[in-house]
Amino acid sequence: MAPGLEALQRRLGHRFRQPDLLVRALTHRSYSADHYERLEFLGDAVLGLAVSTLLVERLPQQAEGELSRARASLVRQDALHRIALDLGLPALLRLGEGEQRSGGRERASILADAAEAVLGALYLDAGFEAAQAVARRWYEGVELRPGLGKDAKTALQEWLQAHRRPLPVYEVVAIHGEAHAQTFEVACRVEGAAPTTGRGASRRAAEQAAAAVMLDHLHTHGLSSRVLQP
Amino acid sequence: MAPGLEALQRRLGHRFRQPDLLVRALTHRSYSADHYERLEFLGDAVLGLAVSTLLVERLPQQAEGELSRARASLVRQDALHRIALDLGLPALLRLGEGEQRSGGRERASILADAAEAVLGALYLDAGFEAAQAVARRWYEGVELRPGLGKDAKTALQEWLQAHRRPLPVYEVVAIHGEAHAQTFEVACRVEGAAPTTGRGASRRAAEQAAAAVMLDHLHTHGLSSRVLQP
Repeated sequence: MAPGLEALQRRLGHRFRQPDLLVRALTHRSYSADHYERLEFLGDAVLGLAVSTLLVERLPQQAEGELSRARASLVRQDALHRIALDLGLPALLRLGEGEQRSGGRERASILADAAEAVLGALYLDAGFEAAQAVARRWYEGVELRPGLGKDAKTALQEWLQAHRRPLPVYEVVAIHGEAHAQTFEVACRVEGAAPTTGRGASRRAAEQAAAAVMLDHLHTHGLSSRVLQP
Repeated sequence: MAPGLEALQRRLGHRFRQPDLLVRALTHRSYSADHYERLEFLGDAVLGLAVSTLLVERLPQQAEGELSRARASLVRQDALHRIALDLGLPALLRLGEGEQRSGGRERASILADAAEAVLGALYLDAGFEAAQAVARRWYEGVELRPGLGKDAKTALQEWLQAHRRPLPVYEVVAIHGEAHAQTFEVACRVEGAAPTTGRGASRRAAEQAAAAVMLDHLHTHGLSSRVLQP
């Protein structure tokens, strides 16, 4: 077996009895008719159940709607893309020449699909328990908190209310570009934290981006009683 | 344990080690705060994986898009409602008085949710393999054919093309009701089969209904070389 596949199996913590399944999980349709899409279909469902189980265990108080939102955010393309990078999938993908030249090896959608396909392959190779154990490790570093997947402005507002702090203030600090293709830059100010900024194609999108950065900061560092960078 | 729950466990083919999970799966939020919604969240994912596995096994030639369409049709509310009726859930639901009076015991959405919750309870009680075995039996009578979940007109057209027969002909045979609330009645004619009819709020909906009846007929009886009822 190729040394890359050996390393991938070590990173997965699973040795395939049927290594051809793993090879197929890394094969894009541009490379061969024996590609990963059916494994991706299966892996999507494996991931859905593994993540749902994790959330039900770790968020014992949350209602169904909140669990659904959290699940959606954990299985989104950007989350799977991050997992694919951690697994080193870019170097292992089997792509057709055209796809390769056009940057397919770095494309988030292909990498996310391949990560799901790897999980589907693992499920076929060794059953749900084995696949679930691997998926658990993928989310080990992710904080599974109430409000996960909620839009960032709502989550930030709720976080501040829970900590009895005043609501955040958003302010457009710049608008770049022509009228038909503007980028908004918004600052989010919260008492007790350095302001954050966000950009987006609309004022609302920029506010969400700024709120997300603020929320990340607060989850990591909490609030100080004074502004950190006055 | 109540005799109804004994009977349900026989129909499921599973005896709960934690019967309180089964009771919760049958409890609507109008009855108690300890209701089925988190189990339904989990059961939805269990069902998704169980059905995906079934489809990958039984439809070895189908592409991912077709598997997804088929999965969607198998986990739709009407499919789950049928399963809930087979399990006898209406008599076992625990509903608040108001919900009961307004016909909640027969409501398709509640019954479908409870069926998912039962599967979620089973998964927590005994693991994925046990839940999957039960879900397999739920779909034993369902024909898992290529084209499942595709809209009926497309599926009918493809079926006829595969059998080298002329395309179907649709004809509006009646329009009932006032201009703002019409019901269309459409006939679907296929060479070698008796015509079928369908009704709907639009011509397209009526055509879909007529095509679905025709497709059912053809799947069961095939084509004769002559029209059955000339």
